Amino acid sequence: MPKLILVRHGQSQWNLENRFTGWWDVDLTEQGVAEARAAGELMKAKRVLPTVGFTSLQTRAIRTLNLALEAAGRLWIPVTKDWHLNERHYGGLTGLDKQETREKHGDEQVLIWRRSFDVPPPVLEPGSEFDLAGDPRYEGIAIPQAESLKLTIERVLPYWETAILPVLASGETVIISAHGNSLRALVKHLSGISDADITDLEIPTGQPIVYDFDADMVPGARYYLKDA
Amino acid sequence: MPKLILVRHGQSQWNLENRFTGWWDVDLTEQGVAEARAAGELMKAKRVLPTVGFTSLQTRAIRTLNLALEAAGRLWIPVTKDWHLNERHYGGLTGLDKQETREKHGDEQVLIWRRSFDVPPPVLEPGSEFDLAGDPRYEGIAIPQAESLKLTIERVLPYWETAILPVLASGETVIISAHGNSLRALVKHLSGISDADITDLEIPTGQPIVYDFDADMVPGARYYLKDA
Repeated sequence: MPKLILVRHGQSQWNLENRFTGWWDVDLTEQGVAEARAAGELMKAKRVLPTVGFTSLQTRAIRTLNLALEAAGRLWIPVTKDWHLNERHYGGLTGLDKQETREKHGDEQVLIWRRSFDVPPPVLEPGSEFDLAGDPRYEGIAIPQAESLKLTIERVLPYWETAILPVLASGETVIISAHGNSLRALVKHLSGISDADITDLEIPTGQPIVYDFDADMVPGARYYLKDA
Repeated sequence: MPKLILVRHGQSQWNLENRFTGWWDVDLTEQGVAEARAAGELMKAKRVLPTVGFTSLQTRAIRTLNLALEAAGRLWIPVTKDWHLNERHYGGLTGLDKQETREKHGDEQVLIWRRSFDVPPPVLEPGSEFDLAGDPRYEGIAIPQAESLKLTIERVLPYWETAILPVLASGETVIISAHGNSLRALVKHLSGISDADITDLEIPTGQPIVYDFDADMVPGARYYLKDA
């Protein structure tokens, strides 16, 4: 039966530095590398072995997938990389230290930006060093200016429906290596979580989450692979 | 204009141990990892940056590609993995120490197996530990029993023509990370090398080879990227 494995990338340099990251392409830390490998070793130990992979266009998610697949003995499976699985775009917050942002804009405003469902953060200022215009990986793609979780969901779910679900429905064990908010989008959809509750759902880094699907492609309850 | 980059995987454990490898899935050595990274750093320094990648289903070639792309800042490009780019299948020689094989079968016989164009090595013995039947990565694929270089070419070139050439012709910079003999097949075709001469052509590990194509998809002379 179809099985879906979701993995949030291991710790990144800006997770560690507590900065808003979004579409900025930071790498994994050494701990993040270790988390990714451990995720693959867990898949191997539990014999839950992906047959097809999907990831974003961001280094931290791609490396997490590659390291996990290597540890699981599955480096050879087909992998598709797509911007629709990228992290939520944090707009003008990109690169800012979360504590400094709270001091500057106040706890309440930052909480709204981080945890409201449909309020996007401010857009990047013109000339920002974090502007991705001209990055060849996004050639031909309308890079979002700033995304709420709602806007993130609105580009993750169509990709899920058209690109991933058909593969899963053909009986594959699909792994998606992605980001806190692109995975929230999927978990909200698959587990039927409300707009109000989804923003508080924390998805731990490097910890595989599994959904088993029945013959009608109805997902069962999600669980951590470590608890399987 | 279209550009093709060929990279033979970095040193593998069995390159180091001087054993016949073929389709057996050995990993890179530390030196092999360093060679792969250096290939990527060279691409970055020379600003010859791949936009599409192809590799085999074998760990040493896939890791070489991933490490090189990471070093070049191109981990996000689409990559296709296909068994047609696998190393020549060494049949019953798989796993044997090359020196021991010479002592057992004689220098002349081993030279024929290694360097003749169309004489395949003996097939694997029944029950060999190197039999890949049942390996899920080759599900649905008729695993060769033992390949000469000629047989290797006969499965590499159709893949080149149908899967890689159309992508290249669309103007991409294509990187192929593969193996000594699957790359010999391509170099023979692109550089017009005779059956007699191709078996002596050594392709160094981790050293990017480049072909520039003109508008009619005629390749120019091949060169090492380091000399560009």
